[in-house]
Amino acid sequence: MTKPRIVIVGAGFGGLAVARALRHAPVDVTVIDRHNYHAFLPLLYQVATSGLTAQDVAHPVRSILRSLPNARFRLGEVCGADLDARWVALQGGEHIPFDFLVLAAGSTTETWGNQSVADHALPLHDLEHALAVRNRALSCLERADATADPALREELLGFVVVGGGPTGVELAGALAELKRHVVPHDFPALEGAMRVWLLEGRSALLPSLPPRLQAKALLQVTGLGVEVRLGALVERVDPTGVWLRSGQRIPARTVVWAAGVRGEKLAEELGLASGQSGRIAVDETLAVPGHPGVYAIGDLALLKGAERLPQVAPVAIQQGQAVALNLLRTLRGHPPFPFRYHDKGSMATIGRNRAVALVFGWELSGRIAWWAWLLVHIVFLVGFRNRAAVLLNWAWNFFTYDRGLRAVVGGNPIPDLALQRSEKGDASVARC
Amino acid sequence: MTKPRIVIVGAGFGGLAVARALRHAPVDVTVIDRHNYHAFLPLLYQVATSGLTAQDVAHPVRSILRSLPNARFRLGEVCGADLDARWVALQGGEHIPFDFLVLAAGSTTETWGNQSVADHALPLHDLEHALAVRNRALSCLERADATADPALREELLGFVVVGGGPTGVELAGALAELKRHVVPHDFPALEGAMRVWLLEGRSALLPSLPPRLQAKALLQVTGLGVEVRLGALVERVDPTGVWLRSGQRIPARTVVWAAGVRGEKLAEELGLASGQSGRIAVDETLAVPGHPGVYAIGDLALLKGAERLPQVAPVAIQQGQAVALNLLRTLRGHPPFPFRYHDKGSMATIGRNRAVALVFGWELSGRIAWWAWLLVHIVFLVGFRNRAAVLLNWAWNFFTYDRGLRAVVGGNPIPDLALQRSEKGDASVARC
Repeated sequence: MTKPRIVIVGAGFGGLAVARALRHAPVDVTVIDRHNYHAFLPLLYQVATSGLTAQDVAHPVRSILRSLPNARFRLGEVCGADLDARWVALQGGEHIPFDFLVLAAGSTTETWGNQSVADHALPLHDLEHALAVRNRALSCLERADATADPALREELLGFVVVGGGPTGVELAGALAELKRHVVPHDFPALEGAMRVWLLEGRSALLPSLPPRLQAKALLQVTGLGVEVRLGALVERVDPTGVWLRSGQRIPARTVVWAAGVRGEKLAEELGLASGQSGRIAVDETLAVPGHPGVYAIGDLALLKGAERLPQVAPVAIQQGQAVALNLLRTLRGHPPFPFRYHDKGSMATIGRNRAVALVFGWELSGRIAWWAWLLVHIVFLVGFRNRAAVLLNWAWNFFTYDRGLRAVVGGNPIPDLALQRSEKGDASVARC
Repeated sequence: MTKPRIVIVGAGFGGLAVARALRHAPVDVTVIDRHNYHAFLPLLYQVATSGLTAQDVAHPVRSILRSLPNARFRLGEVCGADLDARWVALQGGEHIPFDFLVLAAGSTTETWGNQSVADHALPLHDLEHALAVRNRALSCLERADATADPALREELLGFVVVGGGPTGVELAGALAELKRHVVPHDFPALEGAMRVWLLEGRSALLPSLPPRLQAKALLQVTGLGVEVRLGALVERVDPTGVWLRSGQRIPARTVVWAAGVRGEKLAEELGLASGQSGRIAVDETLAVPGHPGVYAIGDLALLKGAERLPQVAPVAIQQGQAVALNLLRTLRGHPPFPFRYHDKGSMATIGRNRAVALVFGWELSGRIAWWAWLLVHIVFLVGFRNRAAVLLNWAWNFFTYDRGLRAVVGGNPIPDLALQRSEKGDASVARC
C-alpha cells in the first residue's frame, strides 16, 4: 500500500517542526510555501533597520528538507481546498491530494478594519516588508538631507511605530539606535532632528511580561530617545503622518503597523476562519472540528478552552511536534493527546545592552537579558551559514556602532505622489 | 572667496577615484548618484547566481565619503544640465551649480537596436538586475520541478548567456556550477536536465586576452558543461527562448544579455553622446571639447586617438585620478596632462579553480589564476565589512559546494503571461 500523504501548508516554525518530527515515520511529507525560504521572523526588525541582510534571516526550505528523507518541497500559494475530497488547490489551478493536512500558514497584519492603515502604513510580517521599511527609512533620510522645506523635512524625519508588543518595541529601539549612531555620521545636518515614536493603545508595553519588566522596558526604550505614547489610539494614517483619536497629529513619512496580527487569509479561503481575528478554531488536540485528519497550528490556530496563547515561535514549534505525534497515533489507531504549552518565557531586545527577558520565571533586564536574547536567537537560527553571517554582522554592528547594510536596492521607496504634493516649488520647476 | 565646487556624477570606481584624489584639495566636492551605494560591479554575476548577497557587493556612499572631509553625497538622478550656466538638473527639478563637472555615470546595456532583446532578455548592469536574474533562475527551477509539461520544463531549464566577454563567461560558469553542485541536491528530479548556453558572435571568447588564454577559457568553461556557441548571432529573443540568425531555436526562460555596453543615457540627455555607442568623446586630457571644466571618465568616456580602452574598473580609476590631477593643475593655471592607461592586465574566473589571467604580461590559467582573481577582488572590495562578508560566503561556497543565498525575495520573477501561454491544461482548471 502507498504511504499516507501528509501535506503541510507553510514552512515557518510550525510547519517545519511537523516535517522534522515526521522524518523517520512511514509517511510522504509535502511542505508547501509561497516562498522558497524559511524566514526567521523574530529578526525581521533588524533587516528593517540595516542590521542584517534579508538572506541572513532566510534559509532555503530545500536545504532544510535535504536532511529529511521522506519530505519534499513545493513552491506555491494554497488558495483553496476540498477537505472532503482531500485536496488543496494551488494558485495556477493544480490540486495536491492529501490524507492528512496541517495548516501552518501563519499570520498577517490586523488593521482592525481601518482602511487608511492598509493604504499608508507599512506592515512587518515578511522579508519583503522588512526591506520596504528599510528602504523607506533610508530614503526619507536622504530626502530630508536634500530638501529646504522645513515641513517636508519634519515629515521625512518622523518615524512612527504603532504597537507596543515585542516587534514594535524592538523596531522602535533599533530605529533609535540608527538615530544615535548612524545619522550623526552620515547626515551631520540632520543630527538630533530625526524622531521616533512608539504608540501603544494600552497602558503598558509588552503585555505578555510582568509589570516590573514592562516598566524597565519603558525606561530603556525611552532612554534611547524613543517618544513613547501609551493609551494612544490611531484614528487615521495618511501619506504624511498619523492622526490620533486624541486629535494629535504626528508628521511622519514612515509609519510601521505592528499592532496585532490575524490569521493568514488562507483561513478565510478555506472557510475555516473563526470570528476571532480570522484564526482557525481547533480542539485541544489541534484538530479542526468536523474535518478528520485536518490540523491547524501556530499563529493560524486558535486553541479552544486554553487561555489565548502568544503568537510566537515556541508555541508554533511545540504545536507542530504535538500534531506530528497525534497524527502518528491516529495512524496507529491510538487516541490523540491534548496539547499543553510549556512556556519557557519570553524576551524582547531594545538596543545594545538593553533588553528584558522572562526565562523560566526569572526576570532579567539590561545587559544580561541582552546577551541571553543574543544567545537564544543565534542558537535557534537555521543553518550554519546564517548563524555565521548573523554573528559577523552583529559583531560589526556592536564594535563599530555602525549599520553596514544600508544599500537601498529595489522599488521606489517613497510614494512619489505624497512627496510631490507637499513639496514646495516642485511644480514650478520644469522636470526633465 | 568660496572654494571651487566640483560636482561628480556617478559613485562608481571612476567617480569615487576623483573624490578620493581631491580629499586634501581646497575644493568642495559633491558626489551625485541615483543609488545610495557604490556597487562592486565585477562581482554582480555572483549575486546573480546566489554566491553573494546584494549587500556584500554594495557599500553605502556616505560611509565611503565619511573619510573625505571636503566631500558630500547627494542622492538623485541627473537628467539635464546647462554646461554654460554651470548647473546640472536632478529629477524633481532641482539645480546643482558647479565650477567643474566630472561625468562618471558609467554604462548601460547595448541592445544594438534589437527591441526583442530590450523586451525579453535580462540585463546585468546593476544590483537590481543581478537580483532579477537570480530570482528568475531559481524560480524557473522551482517551476520546472513542479510541471509535468515536457516542453515547458525544457524552456524553464534553459539558461542562455549572450556575450563571451568576462561577464558572460563568468556568469555562464557560475550557472554551470549551480547545475553541478546545487541542482542535484535541491532538485534531484532535474539532475542533468538543466542546460547552460554561452553565445558569442565572434570566433573566440574574452577578446581582450591573448589567443592561448582564450583557448584555455573555452576549454575550462566547456569542461564545466556550458554549451558554447561561437559565431552565434542572436536574431530575436522572446519570453520562451532565443532565435539565432542560423535559424536555430534555443528554448530558455532565462536569457541574460551581456553582449556589449553603451554610455549611460545621461550622455544623450546632455547632448554629448557621440555616435560610437553613446559615449562622450573626450580629448587626451579627458576634457569634453568645447565645454571648459567639464570632464568624462570611465565607461561613459570615449578617449579620442587612443585605441579603444576596455570598459573596466582600472581604466575608470586611473582616469578619475588623472582628472583630479588635471583639475587641480587647471586651478593653479598649469596645463593639463594627457591620460595614459597603465594596463596591469585582465582576468576572468570561470569556476572553482578555473580562471584565466593576464597579469603584467604573464599568462596564468587554472588554479593559480583563480586564486589570483580571488585575491585581487578581495583587495579591491570597498569596506572591511564587505570583505569579511564576501570571504565568509566564498569560504562557505568553496567548502560546501553549496550556494546558500537562494531566498527569492521580491517581485514576480517569471513573466506570468509567458508561463500561462505555454502551460498546458491551465486554462481548463478553475483558478482560485
